[in-house]
Amino acid sequence: MSQYVIGIDVGGTNVKLGVVNVKGKVIARSSFSTGAHVSQPAVLIDALVQAVQALMAARGIDRSAVAGVGVGLPGLVDADKGIVRILPNIPGWLDVPLRRILQRKLRMEVVLENDVNMITLGEWKFGAGRGVHDLVCITLGTGVGGGLILNNAIYRGPGFAAGEIGHAPLNEEGPACGCGGWGCFEQYVGNRCLQKNAAAAFGRKDISLEDVYRLAVEGNKKALGFWAVVGGRVGTGLVGTINILNPSRIVIGGGVAGSFDFIRPAIEETIKRRCMKIQAGMVKVVRARLGTDAGLVGAKVLVCHDK
Amino acid sequence: MSQYVIGIDVGGTNVKLGVVNVKGKVIARSSFSTGAHVSQPAVLIDALVQAVQALMAARGIDRSAVAGVGVGLPGLVDADKGIVRILPNIPGWLDVPLRRILQRKLRMEVVLENDVNMITLGEWKFGAGRGVHDLVCITLGTGVGGGLILNNAIYRGPGFAAGEIGHAPLNEEGPACGCGGWGCFEQYVGNRCLQKNAAAAFGRKDISLEDVYRLAVEGNKKALGFWAVVGGRVGTGLVGTINILNPSRIVIGGGVAGSFDFIRPAIEETIKRRCMKIQAGMVKVVRARLGTDAGLVGAKVLVCHDK
Repeated sequence: MSQYVIGIDVGGTNVKLGVVNVKGKVIARSSFSTGAHVSQPAVLIDALVQAVQALMAARGIDRSAVAGVGVGLPGLVDADKGIVRILPNIPGWLDVPLRRILQRKLRMEVVLENDVNMITLGEWKFGAGRGVHDLVCITLGTGVGGGLILNNAIYRGPGFAAGEIGHAPLNEEGPACGCGGWGCFEQYVGNRCLQKNAAAAFGRKDISLEDVYRLAVEGNKKALGFWAVVGGRVGTGLVGTINILNPSRIVIGGGVAGSFDFIRPAIEETIKRRCMKIQAGMVKVVRARLGTDAGLVGAKVLVCHDK
Repeated sequence: MSQYVIGIDVGGTNVKLGVVNVKGKVIARSSFSTGAHVSQPAVLIDALVQAVQALMAARGIDRSAVAGVGVGLPGLVDADKGIVRILPNIPGWLDVPLRRILQRKLRMEVVLENDVNMITLGEWKFGAGRGVHDLVCITLGTGVGGGLILNNAIYRGPGFAAGEIGHAPLNEEGPACGCGGWGCFEQYVGNRCLQKNAAAAFGRKDISLEDVYRLAVEGNKKALGFWAVVGGRVGTGLVGTINILNPSRIVIGGGVAGSFDFIRPAIEETIKRRCMKIQAGMVKVVRARLGTDAGLVGAKVLVCHDK
């Protein structure tokens, strides 16, 4: 009986693996740091294969008990063909037919997906998005990622590039963005911008966003004000998406979501003030629930629900 | 044999009807002005029924030759239940079960849809959107409407309110909009704004957008510059949508689309400069092809392809 899925979350510096059960729980996990190997697909692939086999062996899991392996990658993935097109922050990966290679080596079904889509799938079926047919998931970190569930399925777009809400502009003019555009949402709520704003607000270059979070917990007014401004900006960045997609739910994940309670009121107020009535009335803004497991859990959804 | 579909396009001042054949051509049409009756659903419904029967009689079309009737309405339509929820510019319509009433009176299948979605469906299957699975259709007029084809189907959103690209903001601050928000796309490229800008540019209060179009055709530099600015604004308003949805095609309809040749270069340049590479590389911006027939033709798609 195929009762497990193996989830793999490939990052620039670490790879996480997990065995996910039918309930979407990660019941065993492992990880390894990639070092420079990450830029050599052949080397990383061998490491992935060994890590999967080691994880299964450690838990006494036979291949026959595994429905498949889902791999999330930080870049452009052709999920239909199982090809990694390009990983912007990991050189060396260009049009790698990873699904075919892994299937041959592991002798198990393999599916590939963009990492934010993987998180979106996990939150949708087992986390903060349960029960809805249409949701937008955003991850607030150094980058601002996005994933879309529309009409009860992940929406990848014809070029597998959909979901880039971090690169929807907030203004006609605005700071240059790494994507080549300017004024992008990411430039207003990405960690680099927030850290700069925090340093300016507190007059301390070394203050971290965690510090500002802790100060807010203690009731520090400046810190509470800082997060309210962040929330307003997050809300503003969602207005267009909410008016265009009319989603039932917005799931907010990533590091900054740790301060969700402090940013939520301003997000909700901005949506209420600025979005169209129908859209504002039905959208619910919630914090992601699965934390760093979301990508692993998403593998379960991808393998079993949404091929 | 069900070879025809009856399309009905309900507007604030006029109702258009058409018999659409299997090839998506309108082979017969009629129209009537609604006058004040439009705000009395019962009166308008009787007028609709008579107009449908008269159109069919004039062409000798029997009910057995009609696959169904598709009705496009300017407002919020529950396409699943066949209920007109609200028509913002036509008072008196609130939760009218129009499908059930028309089906009983006409003894034919009836489907309802938002008017811009109807145009989008028509352009998708029989106009400028043929062959693609994912497109965004915008209509540039007094209002700026939008419709979405995603994953090969119309995307309505859980509240049937999706597609409101005219109410995606262009700036954090900006002019107040009738939707209750501010800085909306519509406030920058809607006809009212364009007419004001034209009056200012040419120092003539009475200049019409048609005048500016004609001047552009004659090579007038000020007019060409005016349309280039409009194109830049239209392009800017599309950047977020293109980055988020990664559509294959943008179809531009509505009155301003008459000046498509003059706005296209600036639209394309803005997309190329500001959108993400993958998205910019695959999106094609085209002019709507079906003109004012699009809504009638959409009825054919709705009845036969996409129930």
